[in-house]
Amino acid sequence: MARIKLARGREARLESGHPWVYQTEIEDIYGDFRPGDIVEVEDWRGKFLGRGYINPASMITIRLLTYDPREEINKNFWRQRLQAAWDYRQKILRGAPTDSFRVVFAEADFLPGLIVDKFASYLVVQTLALGIDRHKDVLVEILEDLIRPDGIYERNDVPVRALEGLELRSGFLKGPFDPLVTIVENGLKFWVDLARGQKTGYFLDQRENRAALRPLVKGARVLDCFCHTGGFGLHAAYYGAREVLGLDISEEAIELARQNAELNGLESICSFQVANVFDALRAMDKAKERYDVVILDPPAFVKNRKALEGAIRGYKEINLRAMKILTPGGFLITCSCSYHMPPELFLKIIQSAAKDARRRLRLLAWRGQPPDHPVLLGYEESCYLKCLILQVL
Amino acid sequence: MARIKLARGREARLESGHPWVYQTEIEDIYGDFRPGDIVEVEDWRGKFLGRGYINPASMITIRLLTYDPREEINKNFWRQRLQAAWDYRQKILRGAPTDSFRVVFAEADFLPGLIVDKFASYLVVQTLALGIDRHKDVLVEILEDLIRPDGIYERNDVPVRALEGLELRSGFLKGPFDPLVTIVENGLKFWVDLARGQKTGYFLDQRENRAALRPLVKGARVLDCFCHTGGFGLHAAYYGAREVLGLDISEEAIELARQNAELNGLESICSFQVANVFDALRAMDKAKERYDVVILDPPAFVKNRKALEGAIRGYKEINLRAMKILTPGGFLITCSCSYHMPPELFLKIIQSAAKDARRRLRLLAWRGQPPDHPVLLGYEESCYLKCLILQVL
Repeated sequence: MARIKLARGREARLESGHPWVYQTEIEDIYGDFRPGDIVEVEDWRGKFLGRGYINPASMITIRLLTYDPREEINKNFWRQRLQAAWDYRQKILRGAPTDSFRVVFAEADFLPGLIVDKFASYLVVQTLALGIDRHKDVLVEILEDLIRPDGIYERNDVPVRALEGLELRSGFLKGPFDPLVTIVENGLKFWVDLARGQKTGYFLDQRENRAALRPLVKGARVLDCFCHTGGFGLHAAYYGAREVLGLDISEEAIELARQNAELNGLESICSFQVANVFDALRAMDKAKERYDVVILDPPAFVKNRKALEGAIRGYKEINLRAMKILTPGGFLITCSCSYHMPPELFLKIIQSAAKDARRRLRLLAWRGQPPDHPVLLGYEESCYLKCLILQVL
Repeated sequence: MARIKLARGREARLESGHPWVYQTEIEDIYGDFRPGDIVEVEDWRGKFLGRGYINPASMITIRLLTYDPREEINKNFWRQRLQAAWDYRQKILRGAPTDSFRVVFAEADFLPGLIVDKFASYLVVQTLALGIDRHKDVLVEILEDLIRPDGIYERNDVPVRALEGLELRSGFLKGPFDPLVTIVENGLKFWVDLARGQKTGYFLDQRENRAALRPLVKGARVLDCFCHTGGFGLHAAYYGAREVLGLDISEEAIELARQNAELNGLESICSFQVANVFDALRAMDKAKERYDVVILDPPAFVKNRKALEGAIRGYKEINLRAMKILTPGGFLITCSCSYHMPPELFLKIIQSAAKDARRRLRLLAWRGQPPDHPVLLGYEESCYLKCLILQVL
């Protein structure tokens, strides 16, 4: 096994739990390896730091799988990791009226690059780095054995794979089956299109935040911006909203949102429209439309650091408009799902919007990801979702 | 009404929603006033900023009640403020299996210095500043009318009143009645001693964090440190823990915790001991005791900025010991209720403890105060409670 020696001082981040080695941090390489192989990482004095897979073509050259020198990366290793991930979800979601959740959250489950989502009795798998992609067959075999799904779908059609020199692909790993499935989340039903939906088909990471609408929406007029397939809006209707309007730019998402309303018998309360949310909010503000609850769950405006300036303007704009159309004492649920938007900055943007809107804000809850998307401390990239529940006075 | 002119530049904090004026920020005073009177605050150019009560004896000289020049501070004003506070709680707590909550959270309800807690059918009131203490009678009258409690108790026996030149006192405002009452929280029952318990009798602000134990404790061996009257520990038992041990330095609290266990029929699962938690954790670590779940809910180690250094050591010590006695994959619920402990610093202490304990941490949830203790944005003092749910690997 090749050994990779880090430059002096580069061990600190790894020792704090961050599992990546960047190209620029490597001082020396002893022995041969092929891209994707398992290698050992040591500090400048030769002390063992961990073992992981290497891809010289990626900026993230090595991702560590273990910090234990006795732990070998073999089938038994993968089985133990997947078993631990599965047992943890079984524990924290016990008794929840939900059949769909993230089974494996990559680095935060000590399985870098691997995403596994469970939708009812089906699994969706992503192998986002070369070193984990190589083990796809054995991982799928263990998942079948462990979870006994009715089918497994691969959603490796994501651009991030290109950074690893991997081709984009999707299709059945165990199937075929109809990839349009219904799931249960917080007691509601949703259609999820595993083959064509965004990401792995549905944003499972907002499950608990959707449930948090319950005490806020009784009898309310609710606006769900960037509603995708209706997750927040349908929860609002289910929890007693008087009227729900969902907006999204995607015709496909809106069509599925309408079908989801019917699936739950909520079509008389909910309507969904294809719209550019920025334009729609501006028009509503002008027309003096009023809502009691507004949800802002935009896509990641900030895909990288460079885009931050534009993102700040975008977040401020939608939050300002939302505050303006909220009735006094109404509730704003405002989210950012981008890791590149730091929590303190997001809060500052919200406060700046409130100043311009001449509204005062009370924070009822600062929410994040549900526990099936745990944050690995020391690996800040795993902490990405921000969801603030605010009263706008 | 006297007018208070601020020094140049001192208006920005107030305009961002912070309701206090410090002695050092005042440039000029026009007109006469007595301590406790309502005064107007203006910026250096004479622009109206707000209206509030003044106490020259306090470092916090003025606390603003309104930012609206048309709003007069009279009985109608107090009634509207209390009504809004009450309506908000009725809304956000609708249907909750809980009969006790904070009705008025001072500045965050735009009623600086006023705390009102509801325990079952009784109220506990604190008037912590001269300017609000003056209006105690009318406030109590409105509360009686609005909430129709069976009794009202005054807990003005808190040292902070001395900073306002107020005497310490406690007793019945509407009564007498037996101040040992039972409340319902998350479906459990608790004895609360309104006359002698800490603060207003019980820490209502941990209600939702206690409920968050539910998915973590099934079959677990649970240690509840700084358990007070058993809040967290009894929730753990109620949610299926195999064995619960609660520790607290206060004999009175432990006695009530034992009675609370009996009240819920959980005495065969729970035991409570008078102990110094620091000593107890050290002894348990040495004896290689193991727990599946540890709760750390210490009193405010940091009462002010000067005490921060010692507090850092204290927090690190208990978190380190707790991690050491946790089984692999066990859960740590670790809290800080001090405003003077910033969230980022608290997280850093926890991570530093994990490094020393050679454990890795996954954050399941970063929790704060429940919505009956809302955070007023711009008034950071209202954001004080931190409760992290961590998996310790």
